[in-house]
Amino acid sequence: MKLVNYTMNGITRAGAIVKEQVIDLNHAFEAKLQAEGEYRYKEIAHAYVPATTDGIYEGGKKSIELAQQAVDFILENPNASITKAVFDRNEVHVGAPVLNPGKIICVGHNYREHILEMGRELPTHPVIFAKFANTLLGPDDDIPFYPISEQLDYEAEFTFVIGKQARNVSEEDALDYVAGYTITNDVTYRDIQRRTLQWLQGKTVDGSAPMGPYLLTADELPDPSGLSVVLTVNGEVRQQTNTANLVFSVQKLVAFLSNLMTLEPGDVILTGTPGGVGVAMNPPTFLKDGDVVRIEIDKVGALENKVAAANVPVSV
Amino acid sequence: MKLVNYTMNGITRAGAIVKEQVIDLNHAFEAKLQAEGEYRYKEIAHAYVPATTDGIYEGGKKSIELAQQAVDFILENPNASITKAVFDRNEVHVGAPVLNPGKIICVGHNYREHILEMGRELPTHPVIFAKFANTLLGPDDDIPFYPISEQLDYEAEFTFVIGKQARNVSEEDALDYVAGYTITNDVTYRDIQRRTLQWLQGKTVDGSAPMGPYLLTADELPDPSGLSVVLTVNGEVRQQTNTANLVFSVQKLVAFLSNLMTLEPGDVILTGTPGGVGVAMNPPTFLKDGDVVRIEIDKVGALENKVAAANVPVSV
Repeated sequence: MKLVNYTMNGITRAGAIVKEQVIDLNHAFEAKLQAEGEYRYKEIAHAYVPATTDGIYEGGKKSIELAQQAVDFILENPNASITKAVFDRNEVHVGAPVLNPGKIICVGHNYREHILEMGRELPTHPVIFAKFANTLLGPDDDIPFYPISEQLDYEAEFTFVIGKQARNVSEEDALDYVAGYTITNDVTYRDIQRRTLQWLQGKTVDGSAPMGPYLLTADELPDPSGLSVVLTVNGEVRQQTNTANLVFSVQKLVAFLSNLMTLEPGDVILTGTPGGVGVAMNPPTFLKDGDVVRIEIDKVGALENKVAAANVPVSV
Repeated sequence: MKLVNYTMNGITRAGAIVKEQVIDLNHAFEAKLQAEGEYRYKEIAHAYVPATTDGIYEGGKKSIELAQQAVDFILENPNASITKAVFDRNEVHVGAPVLNPGKIICVGHNYREHILEMGRELPTHPVIFAKFANTLLGPDDDIPFYPISEQLDYEAEFTFVIGKQARNVSEEDALDYVAGYTITNDVTYRDIQRRTLQWLQGKTVDGSAPMGPYLLTADELPDPSGLSVVLTVNGEVRQQTNTANLVFSVQKLVAFLSNLMTLEPGDVILTGTPGGVGVAMNPPTFLKDGDVVRIEIDKVGALENKVAAANVPVSV
């Protein structure tokens, strides 16, 4: 299933993208339960396939399976829902497939070929750093370029979302704790990142984590290795790698991180970026107003966002 | 007001500490509204003085003022509440004064005297890094010492919590965006912190941010400068400074951070630690099972936690 948050009339709800349509999962499941003769179909739907992606991640595999059944039902019975449950993709706004994750954990220096070409040794432990949820954008959003720096840069990142509380999980069991996969552009204000040793301040500016185009649920991608990753700016290839080159695979990252901290459903892990970022070009080439950044990952899809000059908003 | 989260019978709600008692703010406000003849007193109380601290931070100064009025009312009218609203401090469990903050932002190298004695120049920009909400503990909790390192260390940190959405706020206006002040022990697994350049992994281990003993609301502390900070381990003074020595004051931090990102009610900022951490002692001296770490800050209070050896829990 291709899980998203979609917004219509100011209300954001969990949906699935099927071809050119967005299916409202909660309303579709209500319709299915009602057709099955359940009297308390609203309450049961709210329990198993709630209206928000956060709730669906909490519900784990069971919620995702029931959501998929609801999608199948509504596509076969398009008139079964009292409430509109099927929308054209273009009539809704699609956001990131997570709403308000408690953790966005990013991995640095994780592509083998890039580390070796820089003449460095492969690391023994992942480098990890944070972004906060104020960074999240979706595939329908522009990347705001605030006038706080002239060095806006991109980083293509294969991303996974946790689907079950994880603490001290082994590599063997790790994939059982993954809800699915998506793409993030780890947008970075490069000079702000580098003005102190800790990267956080250049990484967590508002709107610096476009994510999407949806979460591909793990049942549709049993093996997250071997996927090609390509990032283009205005059609020109800038980054290109394959998830087979990750030093710390999805499995290793779940094991490593869950040994330090409890990972919760909906937590997001960005697995790192390969070579080819703008600051490393000769001469360094940063993003500018109007640039289009596209990241495509095999099987997962393509995330495309335009850069748009923005003013820093002021508190009221 | 001394704002806390207290837990009784498995339910966590917002309270205020008054001498040796904890007052349930929502129930106290319900009682006050009912005495005033409001029919929909539950709904009105839920709107203005909700049962969780997150909701109270959202409500801003108005919620805090009404909560204070509710405390005054219930102390004068102890039998007015249908639901028990006044507890002995010892019959409840007191947690951190924030429940699930979207951001915990920590500042490094922020005490002038410590930077100068290390022979460094004063920084032009704050160093910031993150902890996640899995680190939070309260004054009644032990600090878990997981067997992933032998270098458990303490860091006394004067802390403030955001009380109003802040974006691009000036230093002059900054204190208007602060809900109040508390104390955090920025517990650090020192070797894990230092095994990569980014500190996050040694900073965000479960249970590594004991916080409390409560949030002193900003109306009771108009000036957050000039407060002495003392940390002791088993009664021995290890860290001692004054918030007047902060290179980046509360006002400067609100301005700096809100220029990069939107700060939300309930977001937490740890302002940095002075010299005297265990790793800098000669020889380096780390925390061990049974040690008692106490941090006292003028006017704010004292946070005391015991270190307790713990096993890494395993996911089910």
